[in-house]
Amino acid sequence: MSLKTPEQSRTIMTDLVLPSETNPINNLFGGELLARMDRAASIAARRHSRRIVVTASVNHVAFNRAIPLGSVVTVEAKVSRAFKSSMEIYIDVWIEDRESGEKTKANEAIYTFVAVDETGRPVRIEEIQPVTELEKERYKGALRRKQLSLVLAGKMKADDATELKALFN
Amino acid sequence: MSLKTPEQSRTIMTDLVLPSETNPINNLFGGELLARMDRAASIAARRHSRRIVVTASVNHVAFNRAIPLGSVVTVEAKVSRAFKSSMEIYIDVWIEDRESGEKTKANEAIYTFVAVDETGRPVRIEEIQPVTELEKERYKGALRRKQLSLVLAGKMKADDATELKALFN
Amino acid sequence: MSLKTPEQSRTIMTDLVLPSETNPINNLFGGELLARMDRAASIAARRHSRRIVVTASVNHVAFNRAIPLGSVVTVEAKVSRAFKSSMEIYIDVWIEDRESGEKTKANEAIYTFVAVDETGRPVRIEEIQPVTELEKERYKGALRRKQLSLVLAGKMKADDATELKALFN
Amino acid sequence: MSLKTPEQSRTIMTDLVLPSETNPINNLFGGELLARMDRAASIAARRHSRRIVVTASVNHVAFNRAIPLGSVVTVEAKVSRAFKSSMEIYIDVWIEDRESGEKTKANEAIYTFVAVDETGRPVRIEEIQPVTELEKERYKGALRRKQLSLVLAGKMKADDATELKALFN
Amino acid sequence: MSLKTPEQSRTIMTDLVLPSETNPINNLFGGELLARMDRAASIAARRHSRRIVVTASVNHVAFNRAIPLGSVVTVEAKVSRAFKSSMEIYIDVWIEDRESGEKTKANEAIYTFVAVDETGRPVRIEEIQPVTELEKERYKGALRRKQLSLVLAGKMKADDATELKALFN
Amino acid sequence: MSLKTPEQSRTIMTDLVLPSETNPINNLFGGELLARMDRAASIAARRHSRRIVVTASVNHVAFNRAIPLGSVVTVEAKVSRAFKSSMEIYIDVWIEDRESGEKTKANEAIYTFVAVDETGRPVRIEEIQPVTELEKERYKGALRRKQLSLVLAGKMKADDATELKALFN
Repeated sequence: MSLKTPEQSRTIMTDLVLPSETNPINNLFGGELLARMDRAASIAARRHSRRIVVTASVNHVAFNRAIPLGSVVTVEAKVSRAFKSSMEIYIDVWIEDRESGEKTKANEAIYTFVAVDETGRPVRIEEIQPVTELEKERYKGALRRKQLSLVLAGKMKADDATELKALFN
Repeated sequence: MSLKTPEQSRTIMTDLVLPSETNPINNLFGGELLARMDRAASIAARRHSRRIVVTASVNHVAFNRAIPLGSVVTVEAKVSRAFKSSMEIYIDVWIEDRESGEKTKANEAIYTFVAVDETGRPVRIEEIQPVTELEKERYKGALRRKQLSLVLAGKMKADDATELKALFN
Repeated sequence: MSLKTPEQSRTIMTDLVLPSETNPINNLFGGELLARMDRAASIAARRHSRRIVVTASVNHVAFNRAIPLGSVVTVEAKVSRAFKSSMEIYIDVWIEDRESGEKTKANEAIYTFVAVDETGRPVRIEEIQPVTELEKERYKGALRRKQLSLVLAGKMKADDATELKALFN
Repeated sequence: MSLKTPEQSRTIMTDLVLPSETNPINNLFGGELLARMDRAASIAARRHSRRIVVTASVNHVAFNRAIPLGSVVTVEAKVSRAFKSSMEIYIDVWIEDRESGEKTKANEAIYTFVAVDETGRPVRIEEIQPVTELEKERYKGALRRKQLSLVLAGKMKADDATELKALFN
Repeated sequence: MSLKTPEQSRTIMTDLVLPSETNPINNLFGGELLARMDRAASIAARRHSRRIVVTASVNHVAFNRAIPLGSVVTVEAKVSRAFKSSMEIYIDVWIEDRESGEKTKANEAIYTFVAVDETGRPVRIEEIQPVTELEKERYKGALRRKQLSLVLAGKMKADDATELKALFN
Repeated sequence: MSLKTPEQSRTIMTDLVLPSETNPINNLFGGELLARMDRAASIAARRHSRRIVVTASVNHVAFNRAIPLGSVVTVEAKVSRAFKSSMEIYIDVWIEDRESGEKTKANEAIYTFVAVDETGRPVRIEEIQPVTELEKERYKGALRRKQLSLVLAGKMKADDATELKALFN
């Protein structure tokens, strides 16, 4: 039996930016976007694992573009790699201009979810098989990011993080 | 220059059913689903017209399947036909089972939106060109539904609603 | 023992239009109004049946008047007819001008609810006795609308919808 | 020209208690009820004055009855007395039992609102003419409560609060 | 073993005023502030009693200062006195100017909470020991306010409210 | 004139976990916590800079402890270091047990905000002077984190990130 692909977990959440979600200069609150990405990512994680899932961590997120009130925002989430019971989810955020219809990349983010049973204990999940070039690249990067995360949490020695160290040589 | 297709307006809004949206037997409120469909449809209408759009009407909607708390619900909206300044948007609602991953059709709905300028006055919009069999069928049905709507509103004589009358002969 | 009247189910929900409920031209979202009407109608249905009730369908709704931010909106719902386990609820929506105090009809809508037990299965409910002229007219219309609904759902032949056919002759 | 009556300002807000509004023992939060009463009272004050209105104060409110999740709650507000630019609004809260249909008084509350212009400055408003026995009694009490409020705020000497002192003699 | 102090129950809730919480002249709704104060007070009451707590009453609250959209609002709640199963909570509300950083007192309010068990029945709670001058003054005042509350509710004769009568002599 | 300290920007946001904010196993959604931390951090950033502030980035956040429905959650935010127009804000999250009153550390997070003018352009802000040991440690770490962030964004060569490289030697 063949492995599942990232595409099978793909989750699209397109919605408007409402007035109650904006800051004093009328742009979407960073925190509000983080919450939408968390919901989209949790659905992707659930689609891959068919389990209850909980947020384990969020990687560094940069907010490069302001998202104005009234914008149409598309949050797209896909599982990029599955480990024993955790999954990395890669999220792309797009906004589109009403008049030209043009789509612009507004953000990227990486969340990690863990699949759990009804009592909250981690459970084993399936592997994933990347297909496109971008999926393969993100699949590879996921291991490096997992190492960085373990190093930062003091659970792995920097010296053992082979993939990560390569960045500094 | 070729016409736009329904596909270009396709809007997908996948999200969870939260506790604050459920009725006493723990299913999504009908009214809550109507509101989500309105938001998705408004985005599809805006994608086709590149204008500000306002809800003009909602066709008959039947709630055939209860949608339980915690479900993943996908609302998919596409413009099915464009008239002078109004558009019919066809909406399909799917829910999926967490364990099997199986998707089930939960609802269909048809909304009409009007494109307006900043002062709220209707503006002329582009036509649309259906491509798939389903799109063509919905395109044809849209005219019949427009006639029914005009008859019900007393703005057209039942006798002139040729497409509609065919149903009763 | 005498039958209940529509008046006994009458439900009034007066509230403000808040900024988080408005579209880009500062009017109440159609979907938001649909949700308020659903809540008011569910209370009317519950008052008549004294049961848990769930939304079964919404008839064609036209949004003829925009409802601006800050408006006072009154949603008034009454059961117009009771069938075996379903009820038709007729809803009138009014807005009022702050300065003149004048009330204007903004919308009408018709929802159908089904009374259910704790497991979600339909239960038998009481009949209703219309009293005023308007109640009698809506009571009569309810049968015609039920037929239309069954025809559209493919559960009744157009030919058997006697009340409905009369419209086209 | 005759004066307005309290009845003309009567505002009814019937709605459900949703899960997001309940405390750990599944009853409506006190604060949530205070917010609903504020919205209903503001509409009554606006209906009397036809002005923008802002909350000036809330009298002592006792929460004698818990209001469980899923209840139908009716908040009814009427202007009980109008002063120069302020109005006292008397609010009655009812809940009803789904099965028996019986209504029970759950709360009473008294809010004061001030009518203001666009810049927030108080403006002169019309007097009010109580009609029913209850309206007359509340109208009379309003003066006593205004005195108590001034005494408590240190803006009136207890000795001058004639109506109030009577309570202690 | 020494008694708990008011300081141990101190609860600070600093948050922004969002667009969905403001009235037509862009200030925080009175009702919204009442709801925030209720949540902060319930946490203070819970911290003192370590029990489930429910709102019993709200004393007279005056809204002396408007709180504009975008303000930073700090709600600070402390138990001022504990009775058998009820607690008085004293709440101070501050707003601060973004440019000068200056804090201004915007409101004071007094809520009463009752500690209950899982079935909603009142349970006995610990006493409290005021420490600072302000805490001692509020502790003393709490008894007078309890008497006023009992008199207003018709559960105590005005004549027996010794502390309260002193105000009028 | 002496510099401001981190203490002067300290922001405390204590609030309850409500049912509409929890996932299927009744714990606070990760995304909801990210949104609360964003609001608290934005207030701290605003208190230091006295400017409009917008979220620039969020560092890696790990969710080590589930936060159950009904919990009291305290989010505490302090500016840890100020750069030209950006600030690093360090956030500590605590939950407390209702019965024992015991507080437990649930999370830490690091957000970066930028101070802007009314048009959204970055403006120069004041430096900050750490006082306590913990503040000094976080102040030092802030530079290392800024370097990591620049390297990850491709705006600095890994080789020039002196502080960061030290980690791997």
